[in-house]
Amino acid sequence: MAKRIYFIDGKFRRNPLSTIEDRGFFFADSIYEVIRARNGKPFFLEEHLTRLEKGLKEIKIDLKLDSGYLEEVIKKSLKKLKKKEAAIYLQITRGKEPRSHLPRRKTKPTIIMITSEFRPLSPRLFKEGVSLILYPDIRWARCDIKTTMLLPNVLAKIEAKERGFFDALFYKNGYITESTSSSFFGIIGGKLLTHPANHDILPSITREKVLQIAKNLKIPIEERPLALEEIRKLEGAFLAGTTYDILPVKRIEEIEIPLSPLTSLIQTEYAKLLEKLSL
Amino acid sequence: MAKRIYFIDGKFRRNPLSTIEDRGFFFADSIYEVIRARNGKPFFLEEHLTRLEKGLKEIKIDLKLDSGYLEEVIKKSLKKLKKKEAAIYLQITRGKEPRSHLPRRKTKPTIIMITSEFRPLSPRLFKEGVSLILYPDIRWARCDIKTTMLLPNVLAKIEAKERGFFDALFYKNGYITESTSSSFFGIIGGKLLTHPANHDILPSITREKVLQIAKNLKIPIEERPLALEEIRKLEGAFLAGTTYDILPVKRIEEIEIPLSPLTSLIQTEYAKLLEKLSL
Repeated sequence: MAKRIYFIDGKFRRNPLSTIEDRGFFFADSIYEVIRARNGKPFFLEEHLTRLEKGLKEIKIDLKLDSGYLEEVIKKSLKKLKKKEAAIYLQITRGKEPRSHLPRRKTKPTIIMITSEFRPLSPRLFKEGVSLILYPDIRWARCDIKTTMLLPNVLAKIEAKERGFFDALFYKNGYITESTSSSFFGIIGGKLLTHPANHDILPSITREKVLQIAKNLKIPIEERPLALEEIRKLEGAFLAGTTYDILPVKRIEEIEIPLSPLTSLIQTEYAKLLEKLSL
Repeated sequence: MAKRIYFIDGKFRRNPLSTIEDRGFFFADSIYEVIRARNGKPFFLEEHLTRLEKGLKEIKIDLKLDSGYLEEVIKKSLKKLKKKEAAIYLQITRGKEPRSHLPRRKTKPTIIMITSEFRPLSPRLFKEGVSLILYPDIRWARCDIKTTMLLPNVLAKIEAKERGFFDALFYKNGYITESTSSSFFGIIGGKLLTHPANHDILPSITREKVLQIAKNLKIPIEERPLALEEIRKLEGAFLAGTTYDILPVKRIEEIEIPLSPLTSLIQTEYAKLLEKLSL
């Protein structure tokens, strides 16, 4: 079993034990972030904590985030882990109390952090791309909040695996939204297309970085959802996210997608950005 | 703190401790039931376990439910609790493993049971009725599965409370679906109306019992969703569920709803049914 560093309820713990009487467990009443790090340096920490803070507000968890404290704990966790590549899983629930839909007033939110070695996907996948199934976007109406309401994502992933694919692409009313744990980008007519950041998708931090990179490279961008009929027109496509970085898509269902030089360009620029941050 | 009997991972436990590395905690990858009991006798146990079994299949948790064993544990829990009125919370997750969307193959599902005293709502509410806000049904597309993806229900409940109401009524595309933890029934033209049991609502066991009672009483039934415009036409309305039994609705937003004699009739019949089962 891979080594993991647990920080639960304000302390580093040998075992990840806690009470099951937690609103995170009963109601998915919680939000989370996954933060990558290299050489002990977390990537885009400020962006992650800002999103976390926004999530707390959205679901009305009354907690003033102490970013300085969290940063300190993250850095300590990374020191304890002693790995070049790491991922920090940070979850905040509305807190521990006996089960009742309506929360009590003064329950203290639960903060959990699990830090572990990060093992990137095989370099072959970054070169050749991955295959995706299409899966109906049966998620709730607030996918912009990074909650632990992730069962639909799990079900889509299971179906992809069962059908011999790498992952799943959600679609809603005939349009692609995003993947189970990453943003989706398509290229048509030399333009970079991606779903606008509304309630239907997560405002992904990697997505933002890709848009910045594209801007710098003067690649034209259009933030609009891709129709399913447009899949056949794709000149290239990729997934973007904290654990996938920039991952080319080579097939959606039975449709082959070319590997676009634009994807490779963005891959290189994104890798450079991470490298710079880890110095 | 009210006494609670914990049965976790095959054993009765003094403390409700378990690992947080459970798919129920990370992904809401779990289903549950709440079962009422009186005098040590669980109500509608077969129906609850049948729904649980269906839920496991729907979300592809590979577990053969041993109903005889669960019934035995429930009865033991009730004996340990020693209360006339009890509620059994039963949750099954896909199991304990390090966090990854795609589940491992051989992870054993987690079974959790919490048995506690059940305290019915004040008799005044059963007589006078409760007030409801309208809340957009932002839940996922498979509300027919009783999963722990309950954050929208929690948010609706919080808003109701903040606005000084008792609970919330979900609506979708202009139609009422159900309440945060109970079914909704309306009466118009002497007919009992309720949303059909499709993917938009939970196939509530109390809902089924109400329909049976109405049939026996020769009350005409129509299973169709109620439009928001029809709220003003309501001759009566009530919520039905395991923890509410039959609870009259006296107000939806600013609209007063009369107390229908049909509601009182169904209340009486349902109370008789529970009384019979608890002998």
